[in-house]
Amino acid sequence: MQWNLTKELLSEIREWIADGKDTALRDVTRDLHPADIAELINELRRDEAVYLYRILEEEHAAEVMLELDEDVREKLLSSLTSREIAEDLIENIDSDDAADVLSELPEEKQEEVIALLEDEEQASDIIDLLTYEEGTAGALMAKELVKVNQNWTVAHTIREMRRQAEDIEHIYTIYVVDEKEVLTGTLSVKSMIFASASMRTTINELVRNGKVRSVRDNAPAEEVAQVMKKYDLVVIPVVNENGILLGRITIDDIVDVIQEEADKDYQMASGISEDVESGDSIITLTRARLPWLLIGMMGGMISANIIGVFDITENPQMAVFMPLIAAMGGNVGVQSAALVVKALANKSALDETLAQKLAKELGVGLFNGLICSLIIFGVSLLFQIEYHLSLTASIALFSVIIFASFFGTWIPLTLNRFKIDPALATGPFVTTLNDIFGLIIYFTVGHFILIH
Amino acid sequence: MQWNLTKELLSEIREWIADGKDTALRDVTRDLHPADIAELINELRRDEAVYLYRILEEEHAAEVMLELDEDVREKLLSSLTSREIAEDLIENIDSDDAADVLSELPEEKQEEVIALLEDEEQASDIIDLLTYEEGTAGALMAKELVKVNQNWTVAHTIREMRRQAEDIEHIYTIYVVDEKEVLTGTLSVKSMIFASASMRTTINELVRNGKVRSVRDNAPAEEVAQVMKKYDLVVIPVVNENGILLGRITIDDIVDVIQEEADKDYQMASGISEDVESGDSIITLTRARLPWLLIGMMGGMISANIIGVFDITENPQMAVFMPLIAAMGGNVGVQSAALVVKALANKSALDETLAQKLAKELGVGLFNGLICSLIIFGVSLLFQIEYHLSLTASIALFSVIIFASFFGTWIPLTLNRFKIDPALATGPFVTTLNDIFGLIIYFTVGHFILIH
Repeated sequence: MQWNLTKELLSEIREWIADGKDTALRDVTRDLHPADIAELINELRRDEAVYLYRILEEEHAAEVMLELDEDVREKLLSSLTSREIAEDLIENIDSDDAADVLSELPEEKQEEVIALLEDEEQASDIIDLLTYEEGTAGALMAKELVKVNQNWTVAHTIREMRRQAEDIEHIYTIYVVDEKEVLTGTLSVKSMIFASASMRTTINELVRNGKVRSVRDNAPAEEVAQVMKKYDLVVIPVVNENGILLGRITIDDIVDVIQEEADKDYQMASGISEDVESGDSIITLTRARLPWLLIGMMGGMISANIIGVFDITENPQMAVFMPLIAAMGGNVGVQSAALVVKALANKSALDETLAQKLAKELGVGLFNGLICSLIIFGVSLLFQIEYHLSLTASIALFSVIIFASFFGTWIPLTLNRFKIDPALATGPFVTTLNDIFGLIIYFTVGHFILIH
Repeated sequence: MQWNLTKELLSEIREWIADGKDTALRDVTRDLHPADIAELINELRRDEAVYLYRILEEEHAAEVMLELDEDVREKLLSSLTSREIAEDLIENIDSDDAADVLSELPEEKQEEVIALLEDEEQASDIIDLLTYEEGTAGALMAKELVKVNQNWTVAHTIREMRRQAEDIEHIYTIYVVDEKEVLTGTLSVKSMIFASASMRTTINELVRNGKVRSVRDNAPAEEVAQVMKKYDLVVIPVVNENGILLGRITIDDIVDVIQEEADKDYQMASGISEDVESGDSIITLTRARLPWLLIGMMGGMISANIIGVFDITENPQMAVFMPLIAAMGGNVGVQSAALVVKALANKSALDETLAQKLAKELGVGLFNGLICSLIIFGVSLLFQIEYHLSLTASIALFSVIIFASFFGTWIPLTLNRFKIDPALATGPFVTTLNDIFGLIIYFTVGHFILIH
């Protein structure tokens, strides 16, 4: 039942735009979901996108704008006047989405648009939301919610709800506050429909007992995601330091946070430095991939120097095991680093200390190192490789595996302590460093066994 | 406002269990969320876990069971009798959760538990859900939902809803069906509360126009996740091939699908073969990491053979650039593979064909290869490395980058064609293969430039 954008439809739409067949365009877009129209516009040239966007009905258009890829939206917005943005777009969307869109505009245009808003409450809500740092609960929350006073009667509440709910697509939960606007409880919509209580009962008597689960406005988005995942919530209220209800965060925004977080870690691990897709242009893709390749190159040159210092021409047979040592150091290091990155993302108060983590890595390293170095030693002897070289390879491999386990554990923990994203430690970074240290270990071991 | 399990609380609870202080245990668990109690039980020894579990109130206990880690739940379940599982657990939870729990039991015990269920409708719902393959919409859906006939009046609907909604925690949406149980529309809960329509209006007249978004029972979970993400849904109905309403999938289950999918890809990319956490035992961690290390070892041994075949002792200075060539091949290959894996996960009908993908990779490879090989050539000359060796290194590097771009693109696409998880192609697998091919290219180039 999923709608799919086909090449045929795309080229048909392009033709209609070129020919100015507005009725056909209106007919085909009318029944589409905004997310589908956005998928279509993402594929159009800028002038085509602007043309199609202006044909959409006002409310439909606003929702389409929210679903566009960020770079496409930016281009489209720069083609619209401040008045168009204020009246046709911002006034038709929720405060959190409005703040997101405005934060993408140049500061001057931002102020112009806000000044043009007719609804003063909306304007002040948006200004408020714009003060929150990106990636915090405050920046994710919407101001739109259904809020009732704990001393109201059921009758009064239903009247108030009807008024408040008008602009809200999904209600989910009714928030109960006291005179100071402090969040004191929640009511389910279900309990309001089926309330067998009399119309004169006060809300206080209906409120669920137990604490209300909420997050602070300055909580990081990842923390909000963790709470919502753990407790299976679809919506969570946001409060300030005094417990005053400020807004609510819905699960769709949190799903995006979870997805972005996962994509970012994956990109880091595979050595891609920007948020690119395989559909992007060759220049964009090159720019995203080159930095990590240059780091790898620098590592390779340092390795070349090390090989020069130890003078490979004296023991050229040592070259045979160089790729193995380098590869194993890299693989072990990435494994260790990845486990730490995941553990840091799901941190709990029970977590092992640094010493405990390193001790465990030592255990795993000992196991893996012992197995691998014994295999190498056996296979080398089987293939009649010179005894001292076999010994060098297996001792070096054992040492490299232990070293890489430690190093792969230590780097992300250290980055994290200095507030740098620990995911940086997975992928090419840790591989390159382990290549270098692996070679140093290998040649040092070789120096003692083969020369002395 | 997030509850945190501390070491102090954990050891206190352990003492209370040892001393049989049931009242203290009851007091501390009563106000905790089931997810918090589960976090606690996850940390206990098996006998302690069983003790604490038996102290919980029946409904609370059932929810705790659902929140436990899978391995802990399995142990706990094997300590309970079939009657306990049927009466205390299954009868208190939703059909989808019940099917999940039962699927973890040995087949005989599964049948015993189902035979002991008193509610026949629930038993047949569960048997029904157990027939769906894991990872499909059918296996994810719950049978519990609010379903009304399109010909009912508003008055009749409200009575019916009250009856049906009793067992349902969150309603979200009311599903409208015809006589044949075919899903024909949806109603929001909001529209029922605020319906200004008379009590005699039929549901038909209230239903939102437009198509209902649903998924087929045999749709893969990833597809359901994509639809719900794209359209920002919190719940989606599941239908069979005739459009008959079977159940609904809620966003909390889909959040788990998204998270698991991301974790799996990340683990593959970092060379970890099982779902392990850094907190797991040394044996488990070793078992998860060793397979990839052995693949890396095999690659290293093949590389050693190649170096032997080309006889490094004749041109020992070639060893200097070996680590650089190997590292670059690996890095480029992983980048290309990761981009393909992401593209396959978000596939759309507009996707480039294999030929287009390879052509673009060629472009990116040419760019990156040209930049990197020129740098290497320049730096080599600067450091007065022999001219022919510098030339060998830069030509080989250029070729390796282009080859690795192709190869990294081709492997995941091929795996995918044979229905193997393309994520397998990222990480150690593609790195190891590129190491080997990189060396072959390097030595072949060297053979022509340095010897002839």
